[in-house]
Amino acid sequence: VSSLDVLQRLQHTLRERKTAQADSSLVASSYVANLYAKGTDAICKKVAEEAAETIMAAKDGDREHLVKEVADVWFHTLVLLNHFEGGVSDVLAELERREGVSGITEKAARSATGESS
Amino acid sequence: VSSLDVLQRLQHTLRERKTAQADSSLVASSYVANLYAKGTDAICKKVAEEAAETIMAAKDGDREHLVKEVADVWFHTLVLLNHFEGGVSDVLAELERREGVSGITEKAARSATGESS
Amino acid sequence: VSSLDVLQRLQHTLRERKTAQADSSLVASSYVANLYAKGTDAICKKVAEEAAETIMAAKDGDREHLVKEVADVWFHTLVLLNHFEGGVSDVLAELERREGVSGITEKAARSATGESS
Amino acid sequence: VSSLDVLQRLQHTLRERKTAQADSSLVASSYVANLYAKGTDAICKKVAEEAAETIMAAKDGDREHLVKEVADVWFHTLVLLNHFEGGVSDVLAELERREGVSGITEKAARSATGESS
Repeated sequence: VSSLDVLQRLQHTLRERKTAQADSSLVASSYVANLYAKGTDAICKKVAEEAAETIMAAKDGDREHLVKEVADVWFHTLVLLNHFEGGVSDVLAELERREGVSGITEKAARSATGESS
Repeated sequence: VSSLDVLQRLQHTLRERKTAQADSSLVASSYVANLYAKGTDAICKKVAEEAAETIMAAKDGDREHLVKEVADVWFHTLVLLNHFEGGVSDVLAELERREGVSGITEKAARSATGESS
Repeated sequence: VSSLDVLQRLQHTLRERKTAQADSSLVASSYVANLYAKGTDAICKKVAEEAAETIMAAKDGDREHLVKEVADVWFHTLVLLNHFEGGVSDVLAELERREGVSGITEKAARSATGESS
Repeated sequence: VSSLDVLQRLQHTLRERKTAQADSSLVASSYVANLYAKGTDAICKKVAEEAAETIMAAKDGDREHLVKEVADVWFHTLVLLNHFEGGVSDVLAELERREGVSGITEKAARSATGESS
Protein backbone atom coordinates (compact mmCIF):
# COMPACT_ATOMS: atom_id res chain seq x y z
CA VAL A 1 0.00 0.00 0.00
CA SER A 2 1.47 3.31 -1.06
CA SER A 3 0.28 5.03 2.12
CA LEU A 4 3.02 3.23 4.02
CA ASP A 5 5.30 5.81 2.43
CA VAL A 6 3.92 8.37 4.85
CA LEU A 7 6.18 6.93 7.53
CA GLN A 8 9.23 7.45 5.34
CA ARG A 9 8.22 11.02 4.58
CA LEU A 10 7.56 11.66 8.26
CA GLN A 11 10.95 10.22 9.16
CA HIS A 12 12.56 12.46 6.53
CA THR A 13 10.86 15.53 7.96
CA LEU A 14 11.66 14.69 11.59
CA ARG A 15 15.33 14.31 10.73
CA GLU A 16 15.27 17.53 8.76
CA ARG A 17 13.74 19.43 11.69
CA LYS A 18 16.57 18.14 13.82
CA THR A 19 19.10 19.77 11.52
CA ALA A 20 17.06 22.95 11.43
CA GLN A 21 17.25 23.09 15.21
CA ALA A 22 20.94 23.87 15.00
CA ASP A 23 20.00 27.12 13.27
CA SER A 24 18.40 28.89 16.22
CA SER A 25 16.57 31.39 14.04
CA LEU A 26 14.41 28.57 12.73
CA VAL A 27 13.50 27.03 16.07
CA ALA A 28 10.34 29.03 16.50
CA SER A 29 9.07 27.95 13.10
CA SER A 30 8.41 24.37 13.98
CA TYR A 31 6.62 22.48 16.71
CA VAL A 32 9.06 19.60 16.30
CA ALA A 33 12.19 21.76 16.29
CA ASN A 34 10.91 23.30 19.51
CA LEU A 35 10.46 19.90 21.09
CA TYR A 36 14.02 18.86 20.14
CA ALA A 37 15.31 22.10 21.64
CA LYS A 38 13.46 21.53 24.91
CA GLY A 39 15.13 18.15 25.17
CA THR A 40 14.49 14.60 26.36
CA ASP A 41 12.17 15.37 29.29
CA ALA A 42 9.84 17.53 27.21
CA ILE A 43 9.57 14.87 24.50
CA CYS A 44 9.03 12.10 27.07
CA LYS A 45 6.31 14.16 28.71
CA LYS A 46 4.49 14.37 25.37
CA VAL A 47 4.80 10.59 24.92
CA ALA A 48 3.23 10.11 28.37
CA GLU A 49 0.43 12.59 27.64
CA GLU A 50 -0.47 10.98 24.33
CA ALA A 51 -0.39 7.49 25.86
CA ALA A 52 -2.80 8.70 28.56
CA GLU A 53 -5.09 10.25 25.94
CA THR A 54 -4.96 6.99 23.96
CA ILE A 55 -6.17 5.13 27.05
CA MET A 56 -8.95 7.65 27.67
CA ALA A 57 -10.14 7.47 24.04
CA ALA A 58 -10.21 3.67 24.30
CA LYS A 59 -12.20 3.86 27.54
CA ASP A 60 -14.67 6.15 25.75
CA GLY A 61 -14.96 3.53 23.01
CA ASP A 62 -14.40 6.37 20.54
CA ARG A 63 -12.51 4.79 17.63
CA GLU A 64 -12.08 7.98 15.63
CA HIS A 65 -10.52 9.73 18.63
CA LEU A 66 -8.45 6.62 19.37
CA VAL A 67 -6.93 6.69 15.88
CA LYS A 68 -5.86 10.32 16.35
CA GLU A 69 -4.29 9.61 19.74
CA VAL A 70 -2.42 6.55 18.46
CA ALA A 71 -1.10 8.68 15.59
CA ASP A 72 0.06 11.21 18.22
CA VAL A 73 1.82 8.43 20.14
CA TRP A 74 3.60 7.16 17.00
CA PHE A 75 4.54 10.71 16.02
CA HIS A 76 6.05 11.60 19.39
CA THR A 77 7.86 8.27 19.83
CA LEU A 78 9.45 8.96 16.43
CA VAL A 79 10.49 12.43 17.59
CA LEU A 80 12.04 10.78 20.65
CA LEU A 81 13.85 8.18 18.53
CA ASN A 82 15.17 10.86 16.19
CA HIS A 83 16.34 12.82 19.23
CA PHE A 84 18.62 9.82 19.86
CA GLU A 85 19.61 9.49 16.18
CA GLY A 86 17.22 6.62 15.52
CA GLY A 87 14.13 6.48 13.32
CA VAL A 88 11.32 4.64 11.57
CA SER A 89 13.55 1.99 10.06
CA ASP A 90 14.78 0.94 13.53
CA VAL A 91 11.22 0.31 14.71
CA LEU A 92 10.30 -1.58 11.55
CA ALA A 93 13.48 -3.68 11.75
CA GLU A 94 12.68 -4.56 15.36
CA LEU A 95 9.12 -5.57 14.47
CA GLU A 96 10.48 -7.62 11.58
CA ARG A 97 13.02 -9.33 13.83
CA ARG A 98 10.20 -10.43 16.11
CA GLU A 99 8.27 -11.96 13.22
CA GLY A 100 11.00 -14.56 12.87
CA VAL A 101 11.10 -15.21 16.59
CA SER A 102 7.38 -15.67 17.06
CA GLY A 103 6.59 -17.55 13.91
CA ILE A 104 4.34 -14.75 12.77
CA THR A 105 5.95 -14.91 9.35
CA GLU A 106 4.88 -18.48 8.70
CA LYS A 107 1.38 -17.80 9.88
CA ALA A 108 1.09 -14.67 7.76
CA ALA A 109 2.55 -16.46 4.74
CA ARG A 110 0.11 -19.30 5.12
CA SER A 111 -2.91 -17.07 5.55
CA ALA A 112 -1.84 -14.81 2.69
CA THR A 113 -2.76 -17.57 0.27
CA GLY A 114 -6.46 -17.32 0.98
CA GLU A 115 -7.75 -15.08 3.71
CA SER A 116 -8.21 -11.35 3.47
CA SER A 117 -6.80 -8.92 6.05
CA VAL B 1 11.75 0.36 1.55
CA SER B 2 10.30 -3.13 1.52
CA SER B 3 10.54 -3.41 5.28
CA LEU B 4 7.53 -1.13 5.55
CA ASP B 5 5.57 -4.25 4.64
CA VAL B 6 6.16 -5.52 8.15
CA LEU B 7 3.37 -3.24 9.35
CA GLN B 8 0.95 -4.77 6.88
CA ARG B 9 1.91 -8.27 7.91
CA LEU B 10 1.60 -7.32 11.56
CA GLN B 11 -1.83 -5.83 10.93
CA HIS B 12 -2.85 -9.01 9.14
CA THR B 13 -1.73 -11.14 12.06
CA LEU B 14 -3.35 -8.96 14.70
CA ARG B 15 -6.67 -9.15 12.89
CA GLU B 16 -6.30 -12.88 12.48
CA ARG B 17 -5.67 -13.35 16.20
CA LYS B 18 -8.87 -11.44 16.84
CA THR B 19 -10.84 -13.99 14.84
CA ALA B 20 -9.02 -16.80 16.60
CA GLN B 21 -10.17 -15.40 19.92
CA ALA B 22 -13.72 -16.38 19.11
CA ASP B 23 -12.58 -20.00 19.16
CA SER B 24 -11.87 -20.30 22.87
CA SER B 25 -9.75 -23.42 22.43
CA LEU B 26 -7.15 -21.29 20.68
CA VAL B 27 -7.00 -18.47 23.21
CA ALA B 28 -4.17 -19.94 25.20
CA SER B 29 -2.03 -20.28 22.12
CA SER B 30 -1.36 -16.64 21.57
CA TYR B 31 -0.20 -13.70 23.63
CA VAL B 32 -2.30 -11.37 21.49
CA ALA B 33 -5.45 -13.52 21.59
CA ASN B 34 -5.10 -13.55 25.36
CA LEU B 35 -4.85 -9.78 25.47
CA TYR B 36 -8.00 -9.40 23.35
CA ALA B 37 -9.80 -11.83 25.66
CA LYS B 38 -8.79 -9.87 28.76
CA GLY B 39 -10.30 -6.76 27.22
CA THR B 40 -9.77 -3.02 26.96
CA ASP B 41 -8.31 -2.39 30.43
CA ALA B 42 -5.64 -5.09 30.06
CA ILE B 43 -4.57 -3.75 26.66
CA CYS B 44 -4.54 -0.15 27.92
CA LYS B 45 -2.42 -1.21 30.87
CA LYS B 46 0.15 -2.67 28.48
CA VAL B 47 0.18 0.59 26.47
CA ALA B 48 0.85 2.51 29.70
CA GLU B 49 3.61 0.11 30.76
CA GLU B 50 5.39 0.27 27.42
CA ALA B 51 5.12 4.07 27.33
CA ALA B 52 6.72 4.19 30.79
CA GLU B 53 9.50 1.85 29.69
CA THR B 54 10.04 4.00 26.60
CA ILE B 55 10.54 7.02 28.85
CA MET B 56 12.94 5.13 31.10
CA ALA B 57 15.00 3.88 28.15
CA ALA B 58 15.21 7.45 26.86
CA LYS B 59 16.33 8.70 30.28
CA ASP B 60 19.04 6.01 30.24
CA GLY B 61 20.13 7.30 26.83
CA ASP B 62 20.04 3.67 25.69
CA ARG B 63 19.03 3.83 22.02
CA GLU B 64 18.94 0.08 21.45
CA HIS B 65 16.59 -0.37 24.40
CA LEU B 66 14.58 2.65 23.28
CA VAL B 67 13.97 1.09 19.85
CA LYS B 68 12.63 -2.09 21.48
CA GLU B 69 10.30 -0.15 23.76
CA VAL B 70 8.98 2.02 20.94
CA ALA B 71 8.30 -1.16 18.95
CA ASP B 72 6.39 -2.46 22.00
CA VAL B 73 4.36 0.76 22.13
CA TRP B 74 3.50 0.54 18.42
CA PHE B 75 2.63 -3.15 18.75
CA HIS B 76 0.28 -2.66 21.69
CA THR B 77 -1.39 0.45 20.29
CA LEU B 78 -2.13 -1.64 17.19
CA VAL B 79 -3.60 -4.40 19.37
CA LEU B 80 -5.77 -1.72 21.00
CA LEU B 81 -6.85 -0.32 17.64
CA ASN B 82 -7.71 -3.78 16.33
CA HIS B 83 -9.69 -4.39 19.51
CA PHE B 84 -11.89 -1.54 18.26
CA GLU B 85 -11.91 -2.79 14.65
CA GLY B 86 -9.28 -0.29 13.49
CA GLY B 87 -5.74 -0.88 12.29
CA VAL B 88 -2.47 0.22 10.71
CA SER B 89 -4.12 1.91 7.74
CA ASP B 90 -6.12 4.21 10.05
CA VAL B 91 -2.94 5.45 11.71
CA LEU B 92 -1.16 5.95 8.41
CA ALA B 93 -4.16 7.76 6.93
CA GLU B 94 -4.26 10.07 9.96
CA LEU B 95 -0.53 10.83 9.65
CA GLU B 96 -1.02 11.44 5.93
CA ARG B 97 -3.95 13.77 6.58
CA ARG B 98 -1.72 15.87 8.83
CA GLU B 99 0.93 16.18 6.15
CA GLY B 100 -1.47 18.23 4.12
CA VAL B 101 -2.46 20.36 7.09
CA SER B 102 1.05 21.16 8.24
CA GLY B 103 2.68 21.64 4.88
CA ILE B 104 5.01 18.76 5.59
CA THR B 105 4.34 17.41 2.12
CA GLU B 106 5.64 20.49 0.40
CA LYS B 107 8.70 20.64 2.60
CA ALA B 108 9.46 16.97 2.03
CA ALA B 109 8.94 17.35 -1.71
CA ARG B 110 11.26 20.33 -1.84
CA SER B 111 13.96 18.68 0.22
CA ALA B 112 13.78 15.51 -1.84
CA THR B 113 15.21 17.44 -4.77
CA GLY B 114 18.53 18.20 -3.15
CA GLU B 115 18.78 18.41 0.58
CA SER B 116 19.94 15.49 2.66
CA SER B 117 17.88 13.93 5.44
CA VAL C 1 3.30 14.72 63.70
CA SER C 2 1.26 17.88 63.32
CA SER C 3 2.28 18.27 59.67
CA LEU C 4 -0.10 15.42 58.82
CA ASP C 5 -2.80 18.03 59.23
CA VAL C 6 -1.77 19.49 55.91
CA LEU C 7 -3.69 16.68 54.20
CA GLN C 8 -6.85 17.61 56.07
CA ARG C 9 -6.46 21.27 55.20
CA LEU C 10 -5.78 20.35 51.57
CA GLN C 11 -8.87 18.15 51.51
CA HIS C 12 -10.90 21.01 52.98
CA THR C 13 -9.66 23.40 50.31
CA LEU C 14 -10.19 20.97 47.43
CA ARG C 15 -13.79 20.41 48.52
CA GLU C 16 -14.31 24.14 48.90
CA ARG C 17 -13.02 24.80 45.41
CA LYS C 18 -15.52 22.29 44.13
CA THR C 19 -18.37 24.29 45.59
CA ALA C 20 -16.86 27.49 44.24
CA GLN C 21 -16.94 25.98 40.78
CA ALA C 22 -20.71 26.12 40.79
CA ASP C 23 -20.40 29.89 40.93
CA SER C 24 -19.03 30.47 37.46
CA SER C 25 -17.75 33.96 38.28
CA LEU C 26 -15.17 32.38 40.57
CA VAL C 27 -13.89 29.74 38.18
CA ALA C 28 -11.10 31.86 36.81
CA SER C 29 -9.75 32.53 40.29
CA SER C 30 -8.47 29.07 41.00
CA TYR C 31 -6.29 26.51 39.29
CA VAL C 32 -8.25 23.73 40.96
CA ALA C 33 -11.69 25.16 40.17
CA ASN C 34 -10.55 25.37 36.55
CA LEU C 35 -9.50 21.73 36.57
CA TYR C 36 -12.87 20.65 37.97
CA ALA C 37 -14.61 22.69 35.30
CA LYS C 38 -12.58 21.06 32.52
CA GLY C 39 -13.68 17.67 33.78
CA THR C 40 -12.43 14.12 34.21
CA ASP C 41 -10.17 13.91 31.14
CA ALA C 42 -8.28 17.10 32.02
CA ILE C 43 -7.69 15.94 35.59
CA CYS C 44 -6.64 12.46 34.43
CA LYS C 45 -4.20 14.02 31.97
CA LYS C 46 -2.57 15.92 34.83
CA VAL C 47 -2.28 12.71 36.87
CA ALA C 48 -0.54 11.04 33.91
CA GLU C 49 1.80 14.01 33.41
CA GLU C 50 2.83 14.15 37.05
CA ALA C 51 3.36 10.38 37.16
CA ALA C 52 5.64 10.68 34.12
CA GLU C 53 7.56 13.54 35.74
CA THR C 54 7.89 11.47 38.92
CA ILE C 55 9.48 8.69 36.89
CA MET C 56 11.85 11.09 35.16
CA ALA C 57 12.92 12.68 38.46
CA ALA C 58 13.60 9.20 39.85
CA LYS C 59 15.66 8.30 36.78
CA ASP C 60 17.66 11.50 37.33
CA GLY C 61 18.25 10.39 40.93
CA ASP C 62 17.17 13.90 41.95
CA ARG C 63 15.44 13.44 45.32
CA GLU C 64 14.44 17.06 45.77
CA HIS C 65 12.73 17.08 42.37
CA LEU C 66 11.22 13.66 43.10
CA VAL C 67 9.57 14.98 46.28
CA LYS C 68 7.97 17.84 44.34
CA GLU C 69 6.64 15.51 41.65
CA VAL C 70 5.24 13.03 44.17
CA ALA C 71 3.50 15.95 45.91
CA ASP C 72 2.05 16.88 42.49
CA VAL C 73 0.82 13.31 42.01
CA TRP C 74 -0.84 13.24 45.44
CA PHE C 75 -2.38 16.69 44.85
CA HIS C 76 -3.88 15.78 41.49
CA THR C 77 -5.11 12.34 42.57
CA LEU C 78 -6.93 14.16 45.42
CA VAL C 79 -8.46 16.58 42.91
CA LEU C 80 -9.61 13.55 40.92
CA LEU C 81 -11.06 11.86 44.01
CA ASN C 82 -12.89 15.05 45.02
CA HIS C 83 -14.23 15.29 41.47
CA PHE C 84 -15.99 11.99 42.28
CA GLU C 85 -17.06 13.12 45.79
CA GLY C 86 -14.24 11.22 47.52
CA GLY C 87 -11.26 12.54 49.45
CA VAL C 88 -8.25 12.11 51.71
CA SER C 89 -10.09 10.03 54.29
CA ASP C 90 -11.00 7.41 51.66
CA VAL C 91 -7.35 6.93 50.74
CA LEU C 92 -6.25 6.74 54.37
CA ALA C 93 -9.06 4.29 55.21
CA GLU C 94 -8.01 2.08 52.28
CA LEU C 95 -4.35 2.13 53.38
CA GLU C 96 -5.49 1.34 56.94
CA ARG C 97 -7.64 -1.54 55.72
CA ARG C 98 -4.60 -3.06 54.04
CA GLU C 99 -2.57 -2.87 57.24
CA GLY C 100 -4.86 -5.47 58.75
CA VAL C 101 -4.73 -7.63 55.65
CA SER C 102 -0.98 -7.68 55.31
CA GLY C 103 -0.03 -7.85 58.95
CA ILE C 104 1.77 -4.54 58.63
CA THR C 105 0.15 -3.40 61.88
CA GLU C 106 1.65 -6.19 63.92
CA LYS C 107 5.04 -5.68 62.39
CA ALA C 108 4.91 -1.92 62.96
CA ALA C 109 3.69 -2.41 66.55
CA ARG C 110 6.45 -4.88 67.23
CA SER C 111 9.17 -2.73 65.73
CA ALA C 112 7.88 0.38 67.52
CA THR C 113 9.03 -1.13 70.77
CA GLY C 114 12.67 -1.12 69.92
CA GLU C 115 13.79 -0.83 66.33
CA SER C 116 14.49 2.50 64.64
CA SER C 117 12.71 3.63 61.48
CA VAL D 1 -8.27 12.56 62.62
CA SER D 2 -6.35 9.65 64.07
CA SER D 3 -6.43 7.75 60.78
CA LEU D 4 -3.81 10.16 59.47
CA ASP D 5 -1.41 8.10 61.54
CA VAL D 6 -1.66 5.36 58.96
CA LEU D 7 0.77 7.32 56.79
CA GLN D 8 3.30 7.42 59.61
CA ARG D 9 2.95 3.69 60.21
CA LEU D 10 3.24 3.02 56.48
CA GLN D 11 6.38 5.17 56.32
CA HIS D 12 7.81 3.25 59.26
CA THR D 13 7.14 -0.08 57.56
CA LEU D 14 8.49 1.00 54.18
CA ARG D 15 11.75 2.14 55.80
CA GLU D 16 11.94 -1.09 57.76
CA ARG D 17 11.54 -3.17 54.63
CA LYS D 18 14.40 -1.24 53.12
CA THR D 19 16.68 -2.33 55.93
CA ALA D 20 15.39 -5.88 55.62
CA GLN D 21 16.42 -5.87 51.98
CA ALA D 22 20.06 -5.83 53.02
CA ASP D 23 19.51 -9.26 54.57
CA SER D 24 19.02 -11.22 51.36
CA SER D 25 17.40 -14.14 53.16
CA LEU D 26 14.41 -11.94 53.90
CA VAL D 27 13.92 -10.54 50.40
CA ALA D 28 11.41 -13.16 49.36
CA SER D 29 9.22 -12.48 52.37
CA SER D 30 7.99 -9.09 51.33
CA TYR D 31 6.46 -7.54 48.24
CA VAL D 32 8.08 -4.22 49.12
CA ALA D 33 11.51 -5.66 49.85
CA ASN D 34 11.31 -7.37 46.45
CA LEU D 35 10.48 -4.10 44.76
CA TYR D 36 13.44 -2.35 46.40
CA ALA D 37 15.69 -5.22 45.29
CA LYS D 38 14.50 -4.96 41.69
CA GLY D 39 15.44 -1.29 41.69
CA THR D 40 14.32 2.05 40.34
CA ASP D 41 12.90 0.88 37.00
CA ALA D 42 10.69 -1.78 38.58
CA ILE D 43 9.29 0.70 41.11
CA CYS D 44 8.74 3.36 38.43
CA LYS D 45 6.92 0.80 36.28
CA LYS D 46 4.53 0.14 39.17
CA VAL D 47 3.92 3.88 39.59
CA ALA D 48 3.06 4.11 35.88
CA GLU D 49 0.77 1.07 36.06
CA GLU D 50 -1.14 2.37 39.06
CA ALA D 51 -1.48 5.82 37.50
CA ALA D 52 -2.95 4.20 34.39
CA GLU D 53 -5.36 2.15 36.47
CA THR D 54 -6.36 5.29 38.36
CA ILE D 55 -7.24 6.93 35.06
CA MET D 56 -9.23 3.91 33.91
CA ALA D 57 -11.17 3.73 37.21
CA ALA D 58 -12.00 7.44 36.85
CA LYS D 59 -13.17 6.90 33.26
CA ASP D 60 -15.43 4.10 34.54
CA GLY D 61 -16.84 6.54 37.10
CA ASP D 62 -16.22 3.82 39.70
CA ARG D 63 -15.37 5.68 42.91
CA GLU D 64 -14.71 2.61 45.01
CA HIS D 65 -12.21 1.31 42.46
CA LEU D 66 -10.74 4.79 42.10
CA VAL D 67 -10.01 4.98 45.85
CA LYS D 68 -8.12 1.66 45.69
CA GLU D 69 -6.06 2.78 42.71
CA VAL D 70 -5.19 6.13 44.28
CA ALA D 71 -4.10 4.25 47.42
CA ASP D 72 -1.89 2.10 45.14
CA VAL D 73 -0.39 5.24 43.59
CA TRP D 74 0.36 6.78 47.00
CA PHE D 75 1.81 3.48 48.24
CA HIS D 76 4.15 3.02 45.29
CA THR D 77 5.27 6.66 45.17
CA LEU D 78 6.20 6.24 48.85
CA VAL D 79 8.18 3.10 48.00
CA LEU D 80 9.96 5.13 45.31
CA LEU D 81 10.68 7.99 47.71
CA ASN D 82 12.02 5.59 50.34
CA HIS D 83 14.20 4.00 47.66
CA PHE D 84 15.86 7.43 47.47
CA GLU D 85 15.96 7.89 51.28
CA GLY D 86 12.92 10.18 51.34
CA GLY D 87 9.48 9.60 52.82
CA VAL D 88 6.03 10.74 53.88
CA SER D 89 7.28 13.77 55.78
CA ASP D 90 8.96 15.14 52.63
CA VAL D 91 5.68 15.03 50.71
CA LEU D 92 3.72 16.61 53.55
CA ALA D 93 6.35 19.34 53.99
CA GLU D 94 6.18 20.10 50.28
CA LEU D 95 2.37 20.32 50.36
CA GLU D 96 2.64 22.54 53.45
CA ARG D 97 5.17 24.80 51.74
CA ARG D 98 2.73 25.33 48.88
CA GLU D 99 -0.04 26.37 51.27
CA GLY D 100 1.94 29.45 52.12
CA VAL D 101 2.67 30.19 48.49
CA SER D 102 -0.89 29.88 47.27
CA GLY D 103 -2.67 31.45 50.19
CA ILE D 104 -4.47 28.20 50.84
CA THR D 105 -3.69 28.54 54.53
CA GLU D 106 -5.58 31.81 54.89
CA LYS D 107 -8.52 30.48 52.95
CA ALA D 108 -8.65 27.28 54.99
CA ALA D 109 -8.31 29.23 58.24
CA ARG D 110 -11.09 31.55 57.26
CA SER D 111 -13.43 28.78 56.18
CA ALA D 112 -12.61 26.69 59.25
CA THR D 113 -14.54 29.20 61.33
CA GLY D 114 -17.85 28.31 59.87
CA GLU D 115 -18.09 26.19 56.76
CA SER D 116 -18.05 22.42 56.79
CA SER D 117 -15.78 20.39 54.52
